[in-house]
Amino acid sequence: MADPLQLIPLNDFPRVEPGDDLGALIHASLEHNGLTLVAGDVLVLAQKIVSKAENCYVRLAEVQPSAEAEDLARRALKDPRQAELILRESREVVRVRPGVVIVEHRNGYVHANAGIDKSNISSDPDDPRVLLLPENPDHSAQSLRNDLARRTGVTPQIIINDSAGRAWRNGTVGIAIGTAGLQPLFNQIGEKDMFGNVLEVTESAVADELAAAASVVMGQAAEACPVVLVRGARLRQAECGSGALLRDRSLDMFR
Amino acid sequence: MADPLQLIPLNDFPRVEPGDDLGALIHASLEHNGLTLVAGDVLVLAQKIVSKAENCYVRLAEVQPSAEAEDLARRALKDPRQAELILRESREVVRVRPGVVIVEHRNGYVHANAGIDKSNISSDPDDPRVLLLPENPDHSAQSLRNDLARRTGVTPQIIINDSAGRAWRNGTVGIAIGTAGLQPLFNQIGEKDMFGNVLEVTESAVADELAAAASVVMGQAAEACPVVLVRGARLRQAECGSGALLRDRSLDMFR
Repeated sequence: MADPLQLIPLNDFPRVEPGDDLGALIHASLEHNGLTLVAGDVLVLAQKIVSKAENCYVRLAEVQPSAEAEDLARRALKDPRQAELILRESREVVRVRPGVVIVEHRNGYVHANAGIDKSNISSDPDDPRVLLLPENPDHSAQSLRNDLARRTGVTPQIIINDSAGRAWRNGTVGIAIGTAGLQPLFNQIGEKDMFGNVLEVTESAVADELAAAASVVMGQAAEACPVVLVRGARLRQAECGSGALLRDRSLDMFR
Repeated sequence: MADPLQLIPLNDFPRVEPGDDLGALIHASLEHNGLTLVAGDVLVLAQKIVSKAENCYVRLAEVQPSAEAEDLARRALKDPRQAELILRESREVVRVRPGVVIVEHRNGYVHANAGIDKSNISSDPDDPRVLLLPENPDHSAQSLRNDLARRTGVTPQIIINDSAGRAWRNGTVGIAIGTAGLQPLFNQIGEKDMFGNVLEVTESAVADELAAAASVVMGQAAEACPVVLVRGARLRQAECGSGALLRDRSLDMFR
């Protein structure tokens, strides 16, 4: 028997500012929404609020583009200062075309513009800022997990999600860029092939699937809904982060 | 305000055999699970039951491998008859390595082994069969939508999902290979860039995100749970299929 899966938005979540205590905000928002954590609950947080709380803003006025960034900016039709930040946030540029730079982010995920464009540009035209991804999303997730355990007596599993483009398919989907307390890949029993041999084990990227599910709920609110409580997921407990989701470069046929 | 999203498994779903009427089975299973369709409900079906109902089985004994299939089988370490079927089901071989053949399926999605390995091999060692993807999943979804509207008086939106591997990331996720009655991409208002210009519109692949969410629920049951009712998704109605999810080859940087 499968269980129902519920994704419950934390509505009226306050605007997050640098230095805010996300554990306190989430604890208060759970109460505001009439929710109490129970064992097995997963909280999915939009990357943006983690970055804001951790003050991952960079003022473009303080960015001096390198020659490499100037060149990238020309090829990608981007602001050279943004190109400089993309390079600083990346291990490798994977693809470039006008409007988009696909990189391997320093945290390992292949991501457009190192996650620092889209909704992350401040609206103050006199002092534009961009918002980088969190320094270490797995660490952010683990800290929040510990903090909420202390506050509530229940230890939730945590996923930090971001919207990501994909090879071959249009549209973005939510993916997990940081996790805590859960096994991000779910190993299913290998099926047998036509000769009775067990085929290679199928692994479902359950953390990414839940990140995607939460993204649907987050996208419903005109004013973004950055935290979603997931109940019924039955994820396996594990003291690890999200690294297992990243395909090793040497095994990746699509770089 | 965002709404809660519920994913409700249709438990005890019967084993599907060729010729079965999926609309009748789903209608009965909804009743068995105490569920009544309401406006806005989405039904997500595992590809496998659609293929079974449509009798997409092929007996390997009846497959004569071509020279091209023999060659592919050697490179991929596959049964030549399976390689032959992969080629028949595909427009193009995208990548080959031992154990896996990545193709553009004739329906347009980039998919490992044209979707015909994994759990689709029959267990009868004397007469092995494989199960192909449905001939036209969008058409299958539309037929089921019409049928359930007639049976229940409520017209559900339909997604047929399958597990798919990805570039760059480990693990499979559910994706939508067929849809009916919904806009698969959700256009969000373009954000403004640092100069006040509206950036390119961000499109969320909501059909894929829900396909992924349903995959979590489907994977919970030891005996698969192949149909999930999704409530609260607020998808936009549209009389189209899933084609918008497929990136045009000319725009794809990762082939």
